[in-house]
Amino acid sequence: MNVIETIKEMQQTIITLRASGNRIGFVPTMGYLHEGHLTLMRQARKENDILIVSIFVNPLQFGAGEDLGAYPRDFEQDCVKAQKEEVDLLFYPSVKEMYPSASSVKVMVTDRTDVLCGRARPGHFDGVATVLTKLFNIVMPDRVYFGLKDAQQVAVVDGLIHDFNFPIELVPVPTVREKDGLAKSSRNVYLSPLERDQAKELYQGLQLANNMIEEGERNPESIVQLVKGHIEKHCDGVIDYVEIRTYPELKPVETIVGKVILAIAVKFSSARLIDNLILEIV
Amino acid sequence: MNVIETIKEMQQTIITLRASGNRIGFVPTMGYLHEGHLTLMRQARKENDILIVSIFVNPLQFGAGEDLGAYPRDFEQDCVKAQKEEVDLLFYPSVKEMYPSASSVKVMVTDRTDVLCGRARPGHFDGVATVLTKLFNIVMPDRVYFGLKDAQQVAVVDGLIHDFNFPIELVPVPTVREKDGLAKSSRNVYLSPLERDQAKELYQGLQLANNMIEEGERNPESIVQLVKGHIEKHCDGVIDYVEIRTYPELKPVETIVGKVILAIAVKFSSARLIDNLILEIV
Repeated sequence: MNVIETIKEMQQTIITLRASGNRIGFVPTMGYLHEGHLTLMRQARKENDILIVSIFVNPLQFGAGEDLGAYPRDFEQDCVKAQKEEVDLLFYPSVKEMYPSASSVKVMVTDRTDVLCGRARPGHFDGVATVLTKLFNIVMPDRVYFGLKDAQQVAVVDGLIHDFNFPIELVPVPTVREKDGLAKSSRNVYLSPLERDQAKELYQGLQLANNMIEEGERNPESIVQLVKGHIEKHCDGVIDYVEIRTYPELKPVETIVGKVILAIAVKFSSARLIDNLILEIV
Repeated sequence: MNVIETIKEMQQTIITLRASGNRIGFVPTMGYLHEGHLTLMRQARKENDILIVSIFVNPLQFGAGEDLGAYPRDFEQDCVKAQKEEVDLLFYPSVKEMYPSASSVKVMVTDRTDVLCGRARPGHFDGVATVLTKLFNIVMPDRVYFGLKDAQQVAVVDGLIHDFNFPIELVPVPTVREKDGLAKSSRNVYLSPLERDQAKELYQGLQLANNMIEEGERNPESIVQLVKGHIEKHCDGVIDYVEIRTYPELKPVETIVGKVILAIAVKFSSARLIDNLILEIV
């Protein structure tokens, strides 16, 4: 595995690799790699000739109240993990390399952001879309991999790739879960033992909703109330939202039909958990 | 010469062309081709294996008061001219092909726009940068060609390519002039015979400034006053601006040193003319 720290070396390397016909899979990350990232890497490893991972904690996507400085980092461990997944190139630029001076352009995400998690994080997805535009131009991948646990991020990236015509295939990867159904997340370690036990009820709530929709329920409000009731009954956490929207457009839904997402966010004492279910109803 | 109307066909064609090692030169236009465009094509033809021209009147870069509908078009004549310049591929998408639905993303140009011509056209350069981001991803050129007569546009494109890390070389092409020095423009036909004669004084003003700077003048205000005086004396047109700024950053200049632009805009009765001089003072 080669670690590359400059944009110029990365672009030159990629141009050479592409010229000899290699298909390039790309997993962009902010590092502190966990099972979710490794799952993306494994799938990208299988589907491409070259596997590239980037590690860059992007200041642009952190808000004023969000602590960029406290974001966990462990580059040495990340290297060990990436090597084990047979990553070919690890792109690890500094902030100065990515943003050498005030930028004269930025990407504004004008849709899909003022809902779900985006509501509480104005500007967050502009920062995500801006750094991805740069990374796409630096890594020039054929395929890019994102986890569906962050379904709104996948929706925003889908819009970015589609509306800007990036010649890139977006591969959304299903959420990896613990045995009891809890979506894997680096934040799970912040849960108390009682909260950790209760946290499985987010998944249980999604399953209840899934069953009810399979049985024919098409009223989003009934589903939302069912899930809210279940979580409130079984969890001490506070519900941030339970919403049903079209996917990936994230528009409101009056009747459950077509491709929809049921998305949940619940605040526990030291961790805010999210989960979702994406369904296609014909 | 092949005319391609869909994004998909264009991208597939380019991927094949690039795979066999072709270097691609790109001249984006809004059509109604004139000598300025043809000069760009000739240079691109010389420097690349494949020459691609796009014709697309981009609605995004027209403001509310600007008449998008009245923008001149002549696709048949454009085809004849492009063929003569040995263009390989002409990309000619419809508005619906480029903007099939409301876009979820746009490029915002946050610098270099609230000066010179940008001052009077809020949002204009956002539209330019957004469509170019799309065109760059569709055409995937090695080099892109722009005329230096629209020096502010070149500055914005320079920022777009540099700050978003597009793997593209920007080639700014010097302004093509009539025998008396008037910068060629499709707008020159709107000048009355008297105005056409006076219009050469824009270039004369730039030359006077050039001489004065060569003789050692370093005060921008003195140069601006000289040029304004010259134009006011010799033209019936009304000066919109005469400004000296750094290039391509377009920051104010206190002393003439480094790379600077002297830019002029003058309104005649039916045409607003622009011209500029870019100098590098060590």
